[in-house]
Amino acid sequence: MQRIYVGALIESDLTQLISDLRPSKIAVLTDENTYELCLPFVMNCVGGLEAAEIIQLEAGEATKDLEMAANLYSLLSDYEFGRRDLLINLGGGMISDLGGFVAATYKRGIAFINIPTSLLGMIDASIGGKNGVNLGELKNQVGTITFPGKTFVDPVFLTTLPEYEMLNGFAEAIKHGLIASESLFTSLSALNLNDVSSDLLMEIASVKLQIVEKDPNETGLRKVLNFGHTFGHALEGALMKDHAISHGHAVAIGMLIESKLSFDRGLITQDDWNRIAALLLKHYTIPVMTEEERENFSQLLRNDKKNRDAKVLTCLLTSIGSCIYDQEVDAKEFLKIYDELRASI
Amino acid sequence: MQRIYVGALIESDLTQLISDLRPSKIAVLTDENTYELCLPFVMNCVGGLEAAEIIQLEAGEATKDLEMAANLYSLLSDYEFGRRDLLINLGGGMISDLGGFVAATYKRGIAFINIPTSLLGMIDASIGGKNGVNLGELKNQVGTITFPGKTFVDPVFLTTLPEYEMLNGFAEAIKHGLIASESLFTSLSALNLNDVSSDLLMEIASVKLQIVEKDPNETGLRKVLNFGHTFGHALEGALMKDHAISHGHAVAIGMLIESKLSFDRGLITQDDWNRIAALLLKHYTIPVMTEEERENFSQLLRNDKKNRDAKVLTCLLTSIGSCIYDQEVDAKEFLKIYDELRASI
Repeated sequence: MQRIYVGALIESDLTQLISDLRPSKIAVLTDENTYELCLPFVMNCVGGLEAAEIIQLEAGEATKDLEMAANLYSLLSDYEFGRRDLLINLGGGMISDLGGFVAATYKRGIAFINIPTSLLGMIDASIGGKNGVNLGELKNQVGTITFPGKTFVDPVFLTTLPEYEMLNGFAEAIKHGLIASESLFTSLSALNLNDVSSDLLMEIASVKLQIVEKDPNETGLRKVLNFGHTFGHALEGALMKDHAISHGHAVAIGMLIESKLSFDRGLITQDDWNRIAALLLKHYTIPVMTEEERENFSQLLRNDKKNRDAKVLTCLLTSIGSCIYDQEVDAKEFLKIYDELRASI
Repeated sequence: MQRIYVGALIESDLTQLISDLRPSKIAVLTDENTYELCLPFVMNCVGGLEAAEIIQLEAGEATKDLEMAANLYSLLSDYEFGRRDLLINLGGGMISDLGGFVAATYKRGIAFINIPTSLLGMIDASIGGKNGVNLGELKNQVGTITFPGKTFVDPVFLTTLPEYEMLNGFAEAIKHGLIASESLFTSLSALNLNDVSSDLLMEIASVKLQIVEKDPNETGLRKVLNFGHTFGHALEGALMKDHAISHGHAVAIGMLIESKLSFDRGLITQDDWNRIAALLLKHYTIPVMTEEERENFSQLLRNDKKNRDAKVLTCLLTSIGSCIYDQEVDAKEFLKIYDELRASI
């Protein structure tokens, strides 16, 4: 099951863990940002990495595809990586998604450790064992559910993030409040984004940890973590080509639309809806979609991983802090709410 | 865990199983041979496949790579396959390895069923949950361990196989005798390959089933299934470019070399060695390796998935029917035995 440490990396048992695993080879996967901003800190804090191979990828979601996975397989083969060797994923969601997938499938699975450096990575992408790569516009279309050996969350890395990237993760934090904890939602409504403590990170991450522990293979309950993602994923894919927005931004708008749908169906109160809209619209704007992007959106919605019997299924709220899943919806209904909300701002 | 049926397909519960799974879409993965020789039979025996998408691949191990996996992901996406939909792998080891990998990783895993049509598929590739694709010359370098919903073994399909393909599977059958059952080895020494019964198939498959059940993730015991494969895999890879031989042929020669090494180390008797050599050399010849292929062989050996701490590890016999694993060896020792045996024939 998932093992997670939240706190200063230097006080963690990572050095001991590496020594216990006795890998004959270690590789650290970074992107150009974490290579520069995070790797020196990690090399200083953690023992046993002196001889590690450092892999540096181009930052950004576009890197997360099968072609890059193939490059990494070849690289690990060149390093003569065996099944007992270790991959350390140092980065945001892109790095842990891609690195986790490669580790889970190279020689049918090698050990890996995640050190998330983005807010999104810390509270979401690194927890729950999901990994994956994109297939063209289809996000995470290929992947597995495989748990890292352990995840190490040090809030110090948040100081390396631009505001845009903080907001990318903050959307998932808001989601955790909306689906499971009104008190967390209230804390987040008042939060200064420059001041995120280990305690708050633990509280946000715990929502996902608890849900995932109860349902590791997403047979039921875990689906609530998809709140905001039915609309959000399709929106993200539709805009990717010409007007790309971040995953978090797309999910924030997805949560806005799906909350409004919850309200329209009489599931949440006017007051709940007002509080949700206030927090989301304080940080996120509703992007325009062109005609072509609207069509693309509808097409992507039909291909959503959560669909069953060719029906589009979404999560809805029943209050702030409570969520239901497998609710039918269609593209038209979603787009009607989107148009109304666009018109009202 | 693994569910397997051995007997006439028409008397099996496959139709019921499909009906229970309630997939909204089904795809059947075939190669050009099974499309022609096996698919019509399956369509006649099994209900619920009328609307299935039929995918036909080029036969042969060269098809089993990441590029083909990517094509299949795209195809399933085009079919709007969801997580509850079903892939049926109808073919030999190539089809179940590739189809199993794609099913295990498409949208983080969809349901799949194996109908092996080759002897190798029936007694080996379809059992144990291992899947994978090749990375250049590196066999099954990328894959997972994921069990099919069920495997259906009907000996009728063996009548569609050329002798070459029977011998390909027969090597693994001999392996099952050598590592676990002297009585099975004795039966196989006297077998007419045109007359393989359901009962014998069940006996051969049971060896692997029992081992895999005790050790699904290959932490220990399961490694004995790699007997013949340390030398065999490297040989297969080394010859692939210019003098390709079948996997089974390579494993047969691998078993010959590793049995001789067992004898040279005093682990098995002269009589055991004589019996093993007699059966293997009755069906299989020792191929020549060029200088370049010998170098390639040594390089591939160093990259073997079973290695640890950069040491080459192999299985050895302690008698016919008993095997140990994690025994150190090096390329020189292997090649010395290979040269001796080549010279003696």
